[in-house]
Amino acid sequence: MKKLSPSELLQTQNWRYATKIFDATKKISSEEWKALEESLILSPSSYGLQPWKFLVVNNPEVRQKLMAVSWNQKQVVDCSQFVVFLGKTDIQKSDVEHLVDRTVEIRHVPKESLNVYRDMMVADLVNGPRHAVISAWTSRQVYIALGNFMTSAALLGVDTCPMEGIDPAKYDEILNIKGTGYATLCACAAGYRSQEDKYATLPKVRYPSNELISRV
Amino acid sequence: MKKLSPSELLQTQNWRYATKIFDATKKISSEEWKALEESLILSPSSYGLQPWKFLVVNNPEVRQKLMAVSWNQKQVVDCSQFVVFLGKTDIQKSDVEHLVDRTVEIRHVPKESLNVYRDMMVADLVNGPRHAVISAWTSRQVYIALGNFMTSAALLGVDTCPMEGIDPAKYDEILNIKGTGYATLCACAAGYRSQEDKYATLPKVRYPSNELISRV
Repeated sequence: MKKLSPSELLQTQNWRYATKIFDATKKISSEEWKALEESLILSPSSYGLQPWKFLVVNNPEVRQKLMAVSWNQKQVVDCSQFVVFLGKTDIQKSDVEHLVDRTVEIRHVPKESLNVYRDMMVADLVNGPRHAVISAWTSRQVYIALGNFMTSAALLGVDTCPMEGIDPAKYDEILNIKGTGYATLCACAAGYRSQEDKYATLPKVRYPSNELISRV
Repeated sequence: MKKLSPSELLQTQNWRYATKIFDATKKISSEEWKALEESLILSPSSYGLQPWKFLVVNNPEVRQKLMAVSWNQKQVVDCSQFVVFLGKTDIQKSDVEHLVDRTVEIRHVPKESLNVYRDMMVADLVNGPRHAVISAWTSRQVYIALGNFMTSAALLGVDTCPMEGIDPAKYDEILNIKGTGYATLCACAAGYRSQEDKYATLPKVRYPSNELISRV
């Protein structure tokens, strides 16, 4: 596996920023996009439950509609690929069974060998106190994928702009998500920064490390 | 900036897994750890608000206490660095002002030039409907940092194990977090996989891409 040096990692971290103006003429190559979709799929989630869907919106008319309910932020239409992040609104026993079945399929293990794993998930997510806040829980998982996606994109030299300034309910309407058991949480535009984006060269605003990191 | 090829990115994504057994004799070098702490700090967050703290627990006695309220998962004591992820439990106007002040300090811009940005944050996070669910909102941001952290670690060849199977309230007690305006959300162990960890070589369980990714 190709490793980065600490300074290479930090160069990537510092290169990344929330792109405000994309160069609408530049498109992500299909090979690179395929790897970014695969990175989304390979994102970690609690129990490996993957309580998410990723909607890649390329239709220009749909993007126009989404921009109108995204404070008219032009990133929605100017970026190369626009991804809407959906979270599962509920977790039921059938979802746990689905994961168990998939595990049997991929790892060729007897289903019975996963009973403890299954029962633990059901006790926690379906019958436990977490069920009352299950959509908050699934949302957090989706944000792991968002974090992984932005870092992965930067590694390929692809810019991103995470977007919470959207109307999720309107997104659900426009994208026909209502009633599917999923809901829009946020979006992320991906592509290439325009040379006109003055934000690209501004120094990052972060609190000093002693304010954010403590040692015990 | 050093870029990865699509296949190099996917090698890293596939190399990463939730490490169950760490080699307790292997420690992350201080240079690499410094870069990982810096990556945490450079994580993206909505509005750049950084509603988080990262607690690096190296004290062996404290780690023992945390393990006891983490289903006795040995990763807590065997890993090289153990990070507890805290989220801010509330966002007040003073938090927004703090960010504005920091922006003035770093970017050398007049404070007045940030009025629109400040008012937007206050209207959304302090006075808007989001305030009712503010800790859920800050939690999501923290999970961006978690996602970024795991990917960043993998890039350096460092293994991680994200941990939600912990008792956050007990963590808050042990780590004296109560009353600080922050709360434990999850933890992440970082270090090097043991050769005995059979999970390292198991194929990843993911749903097929057509189940997770749709195109519009």
